[in-house]
Order: sequence, then C-alpha cells, then structure tokens
Amino acid sequence: MKDALGNSTQDLADLFQWLSIPSVSADPKNKPDMTRAAEWLKARLERSGLEAEIIPTAGHPVVYAQTKQLPERKTVLVYGHMDVQPADPLDEWETPPFEPSVRDGFIYARGSSDDKGQLLAHVIAAGRSANLPVNLKFLVEGEEETGSPNLHDFVRGHVGKLACDFVAISDGSAFAPEVASLTIGLRGLTYLEVRVTGPNKDLHSGGYGGAVANPINALVTMLASLKGEHGRVAVPGFYDRVQAVPEAELASWRKLEFSETAFAEAVGVDALPGEEGYSVLERLWARPTLDVNGIWGGYQGEGSKTVLPARAGAKVSMRLVPDQNDSEIFELVKAHLLSVAPVGVRVEVVELHGGLPVALNPADGPVRAAKAALGRAYPGREVALIRSGGSIPVVATFRSELNAPVLLLDLGLPDDGPHGPNERYSLECFHRGIEIAGYLYEEIAAL
Amino acid sequence: MKDALGNSTQDLADLFQWLSIPSVSADPKNKPDMTRAAEWLKARLERSGLEAEIIPTAGHPVVYAQTKQLPERKTVLVYGHMDVQPADPLDEWETPPFEPSVRDGFIYARGSSDDKGQLLAHVIAAGRSANLPVNLKFLVEGEEETGSPNLHDFVRGHVGKLACDFVAISDGSAFAPEVASLTIGLRGLTYLEVRVTGPNKDLHSGGYGGAVANPINALVTMLASLKGEHGRVAVPGFYDRVQAVPEAELASWRKLEFSETAFAEAVGVDALPGEEGYSVLERLWARPTLDVNGIWGGYQGEGSKTVLPARAGAKVSMRLVPDQNDSEIFELVKAHLLSVAPVGVRVEVVELHGGLPVALNPADGPVRAAKAALGRAYPGREVALIRSGGSIPVVATFRSELNAPVLLLDLGLPDDGPHGPNERYSLECFHRGIEIAGYLYEEIAAL
Repeated sequence: MKDALGNSTQDLADLFQWLSIPSVSADPKNKPDMTRAAEWLKARLERSGLEAEIIPTAGHPVVYAQTKQLPERKTVLVYGHMDVQPADPLDEWETPPFEPSVRDGFIYARGSSDDKGQLLAHVIAAGRSANLPVNLKFLVEGEEETGSPNLHDFVRGHVGKLACDFVAISDGSAFAPEVASLTIGLRGLTYLEVRVTGPNKDLHSGGYGGAVANPINALVTMLASLKGEHGRVAVPGFYDRVQAVPEAELASWRKLEFSETAFAEAVGVDALPGEEGYSVLERLWARPTLDVNGIWGGYQGEGSKTVLPARAGAKVSMRLVPDQNDSEIFELVKAHLLSVAPVGVRVEVVELHGGLPVALNPADGPVRAAKAALGRAYPGREVALIRSGGSIPVVATFRSELNAPVLLLDLGLPDDGPHGPNERYSLECFHRGIEIAGYLYEEIAAL
Repeated sequence: MKDALGNSTQDLADLFQWLSIPSVSADPKNKPDMTRAAEWLKARLERSGLEAEIIPTAGHPVVYAQTKQLPERKTVLVYGHMDVQPADPLDEWETPPFEPSVRDGFIYARGSSDDKGQLLAHVIAAGRSANLPVNLKFLVEGEEETGSPNLHDFVRGHVGKLACDFVAISDGSAFAPEVASLTIGLRGLTYLEVRVTGPNKDLHSGGYGGAVANPINALVTMLASLKGEHGRVAVPGFYDRVQAVPEAELASWRKLEFSETAFAEAVGVDALPGEEGYSVLERLWARPTLDVNGIWGGYQGEGSKTVLPARAGAKVSMRLVPDQNDSEIFELVKAHLLSVAPVGVRVEVVELHGGLPVALNPADGPVRAAKAALGRAYPGREVALIRSGGSIPVVATFRSELNAPVLLLDLGLPDDGPHGPNERYSLECFHRGIEIAGYLYEEIAAL
C-alpha cells in the first residue's frame, strides 16, 4: 500500500514499531527493551534479504547482517545505532516519547531522527532491489548514546567480518531543509577532567579563609587561564597544527544561506562572541574551541553556607580541526594546567576520551558517489560540501582498524532536536532517505 | 553530690538530659524536639530562680527569662541557642549523637559545645548565688544553625524587654586548651551569588561551541578576576577602609603559641598560601578574604557529556575587617563582576547576607570585667586578647537595636568539632565555664 504521495505505508509502519521499543541504553531497567530492539531489527534485516545475527558484547549486543558477498562488487558497511537517549524530561513531550505520532509532516518519537529513522532508510533500501549492485554489511550497535564503550573492541575482534571498501553513516543532519548537502569534515575531540584537592575535609571559611588555599578559587583561576584575548585558546602550541581552510571551500560556504541573526535568536542569545576574524560557520566547522562542559565544588543549595571546600572539579573539552591530534592536545592542556596550578592544592588532569578530526577529500570516489546520489534526489540543485562542528569518535576506529574511509550521509535536519523532548524526523526526510541510500549503492557500483 | 574533683554531678546530669533531645532546627521532623528542648530549658531556668517563658516566632520559639530586675544593678543579657546542627553523617559517630557519653575527659554529643554546654554554664551560674550581683536576662533562640531568620525581628519587637547594659555570648572557642583568651574581634561577611545565563537551553558543544558564549567559561573568567597578585583581592576599592592592627595587639599575637606547621598538618595541606607580608594569624583575624564557597554548571556526573550549558552560578563570600562595610563591599564586588562580564551572557549578582566586622576596645568596661573573670579562673596566667576569623551576624542586631556592646566569652576549644561527627566538649571547660560565668557577673558588678 502507498500513501497519497506514493510512499509505502509499510515503511512508516515498520519505523513506528521500532520506535515503540524504548531502547534507552543508559538505563539498566531498559535492558530487556535493548534485546527486543535488536530482535526486531534482525527480523527486519532478514525481511530485506540479509543474513542477520545478534552478537553479544560486554555491554548491549550488536546486530550484524550482510547480503550475499560477491567478490566483484564493492562492499559498503553501514554503521548505525539502535539505542536512544533517555526521554527526560517526560513532561515536556507533547505526545509520549515511545508512542510515535505524526503532526504537520513530522514523526515525533524518541529515536525518530537519532538514529532509528536514518538507519532504517538503509535497511529498507537494501530490500528494494532484487539485485543489489554492491555488497552490503550492517553493523548496528546499542551503546552509541553511552559513548560506544565496547565498539572499538568489537571492531578489532571482527576485522575480517567487517572488511569493506568504505563505511556509510547516516546519523546527523543536513545543512538545512531542501538543501542537498554532504558533510566532508568533522571536528575531533579531547575531553578531560580537572580535579583539585585542598584540605582533607570541608572547612569553615571563617576559621580558615585567607590561610588555606581554596580549591574552587584555584580551579577558576586555572580554567580562566585557558582562554586568552580575542577568543583564542591560550595554551602554548594549541594552534600549531591547525590547517587553513582551502579558499575554494571557504568560497562555497559563503554561498550557503546562513543567517547569524537567526542562529543567535534560535538559542536566545543577543551576540555570538568567538575567535576574532572568523565567521560563525568558520568558527563552528574549521576552528578549534575550548568549552568547560561542567563544574562543581562546595555548596550548591539554596541560601548560603560558609564552606571552604575540600575539593572542586571540572570537565573541559576541546573541539579539534585538521591536523590537530587529540592525544597531543591533551598533553599540552594538561601541562598548561599543571604549570598554572597554585601552591596549596593538588591537581589531577585525566583524559576521559578523544577522537581525531575528520576531513574527506572531495576528489575521493565515495565523496563523488554520495554527491551524485544526492544530486539525483534533489534534481537541479547543487550539492553543498559542508562540515560539522561535532565529532564521531568511532570514525577513527573504522579508519584505524578497517582501513576504511567513512562517508557521512546525514539524512536528518538541524532542528530535529535529537537529545531533547519532542525529537522529530520529517516524513520527507524519511522517504527521501530511502531513495538516497538506494542511489548511493548504485553510484558506488558505477565508480 | 559532687564527683572526685568536687564538681556537681547534678550539673552534668542536667546537660546530659538536654543533649538527649535532638533539637535539630533544620529538619522539620524534629519540630516536636524543638518544643521539648525549649520546655526543658524553661524549667531549668526556673530552677535557677528566673522567671521564664516560651515566646513563639514565625519559626521555632524563643526562650526568654530574667531574674528580678533591680534598678541599681547592671543588666547582662545572655544570648545563646538551643538548636543544633544535623548529626549527619551518622555512621562516623563513635557513640550516638543524642546519647551523650564521657570518654577521656570529654562529653561526646551533638550540641555539647555548640551551644548547649556553653549556654548551660550561664544558666547554672545564675542559680548558684542567692544574691546575684547583676540583673540577668536570657534570650535563647532555636534557629541559630539555620541563620537566625527570625531573630532580628524578635529583637526589634522586644526592645524594652531585652534592654541591657551589654550582651554576653558564649558560643565559640578559646585560643587553645589551658590558655586564658578573650575574643575582642570578629570578621564581617558579605555573601553573594553570581548567576550567569547564556543560551535558552543546554546546547551540544559540537554544534554550538565556538559560536555561542559558554556560561561556565564566562563565570570562571569573572571569578578569576576577583583575585590578583600576591594573594590580594583585585576589586577596586576593596581595601580602602581596612585598618591596620595596632602594634601592641600584633605584639601580643606574636607571644601566642601558634604553629603554622601544626595548623597546616591538621587540615592536610602542605602550604598555607595567602596575602603576602602577613602571618597566618594576621590573615585569619585581621585581613579580609574572598572565597568561592560553591560553584555549579553543566554536567557533573561520571564520564563525559559534551554540553554547552544554559547557565552556571557560584556563591562567593568576603570576610571583612574593621572598618569595611558589608553593603559597600557588596556593591564594589557586584560592580566589578558586571564590568568584566563578557558579551553573550547575562549576569545577575544577588546579595544573600552580610554582617559588619566587630572590634571591641580593650579599655571598655565589659572587656576589663571579662579579662578579670578569666584571670580568676586561670590564676597566675596572662589573659590573651585574640580575634576570630568567623562572623556572628546577630552581634550587629544587638548593637543596632539594643545599643548594647557584645562580649564574646568563648568557653569551647578549637577542636570541639561543633558541626562535624563526634562533637565534644571538655568536662574541664564545662565546669570551669560555670565558674567563669559567675566571676563575670561579680566583675561586672564591681566595675
């Protein structure tokens, strides 16, 4: 059966079934739902003609599937995830997060855009052709939303099974509605925690203030020293490996319809301060940053408590751009923090995770194939080559363990709100995503 | 009956009874205990020959009592409190907090030193003499540990009843065991909260980092700017009214047995950094400070979350010394914080509470009387005039509303641990405190 626009109603029914399973990987009470989500996906992959299996890991299981592998064909590994973010705060959802519904052309449900809706496009596309022009493999994990703690080991342990010419990931957003865009760059990430310890217990600030170093005062001084003038990071050596964006790429960004005013208004700020001399898009896509993601210490309740606390801490992350290296940046920032640590406190700097920046070459085959696929889905439009400010650490794993380049075929939209209440995915994106995936396989075969 | 040292066993039995009532003012479930503690005290005051009453307030009630008031005698108002801190963490107590017990010469129980043991010395002393040489009044509140929210209004509303020549408070600690010391100075306090708001919701640091101002980065930069070089506060005008300590007082401090090494070891730090050019005692007693008492923002849990948070905040307090003014200091610090607030965030600075510093003149009658009383309790020893780094905001209320100077007759010891587990009060302090209170009344009468 097809709807008024000619789309299969079965495809939407499938997505609704999968979205109804609350596969929240972070919450132990949803463990049975993780199994149900995996079983549902295995059956759906089999319906598309693939051989599928559920493989246990130290955490939630992985679903692996493959078409019949013919040696003369290129092999595409589709990576995605079946787990979703927690749905809190529940009372901000207009309809329940695990009871998918359609309003004004959008599917509302937790996981609709991130990543069930985008991944299912590939699963459905795989079943559309009786004679697929490529070998397909699927690697679908259940722990992406908790940082993929077991994926690296899984990939290392299944290098033969996962061997491919390249990896396709659909787990992000295009530049704007009705813009054909392909993401060819991601920022890398260094994420660390700073822990400052002072006295051996919380002290009274009257009895000790002025004589005993305060860990919070020490921490804010150290953190403040990380940023300098003109919005720049003040850690020595931080910018040494940063590459300038090629002039042609910059020129193409200038052609994008991007309103800094609308961007600021959407998040409720009246200014967009940042590194001087760069546009907002350049700062988001091609310049490294340093953000304090969390900070804590002492008394956080109502009213006042005159405590000189025993400890304080902060989470700090740096977004990196080519050719910065996450381990090297960690060492630089750690050395800087230790060098400015005041006397009277002990400072520990711990690396929590990291990932290299990604830059695809527009001349490479996979990029050309994806560009052609998008061109067919958006007839008559130019395909914009963009970057993303975010990071996908697993990309580095695929490159290092499988020696496979990664293609980012983002099918969502910027305002899908993937981690917040009322996450949504446009019906148009869903159905066009299935088309784009099919075109991609054909264009890969034609390379 | 008297014990082997000649002390009344009834006095200790009385204290144990009162300590057995868990009068935790902060916890609503202890409300009936607050009433029981007030009733017990009223009865004990009556046994000492005073007329006593329980007076309701908007919060916990006050106990008021007075001896027969003879116009030719001086009037002393004893202020104290019958409420205690919560006993958490319970599992760190060697014996239950509300089952008083004696070990190695110390009474262990919540409230033993702060303030039941110290206050009871006055109640017992009042009953010792059939012909008291002064008029006594008692004002005992039940909300000191929650910041005395109703005391100021109570004093304003009972100015006639509370009229006195001076106020005596025993709710602190002497300089060291076996040192006769009198506290003649307290630091003041300005306590404020800084609230920084950025975007209208938590953002993904990949999608927005570098373009949207981060409230935590803004906050740490602002807070770091409050302190400058050499351990000094960098707020313009902050030191303008700070008075130097008279050379004679400084000389007397140098004679005190004070080990900076032992002070540092007791709190587990290897250095005591602070304002350059001042000893630790000077920094604690006679120099103003600035401490961040609490800070929060973004993600504080395990692992990493790449959030650019919507808001961040901190609690900041300044200890003040004569002649600094808490309201003026608030305005200076607020103006400074607003002047350094970066673009892209909104900053709010809110005063939470404050109090003036206190300095008593050694030549004043009450100070001379207290010195003489201490001299009699410690025959042959010099009485050291010291200060305290802490603040007692209610002192300002007594000065402004009753026009009465306040005498700080601290009967506890520095390691009584009043707000922690295993709070204790030495038997010797308890019994000598009763003596000292009696001597004080005689010395006052003899002025």
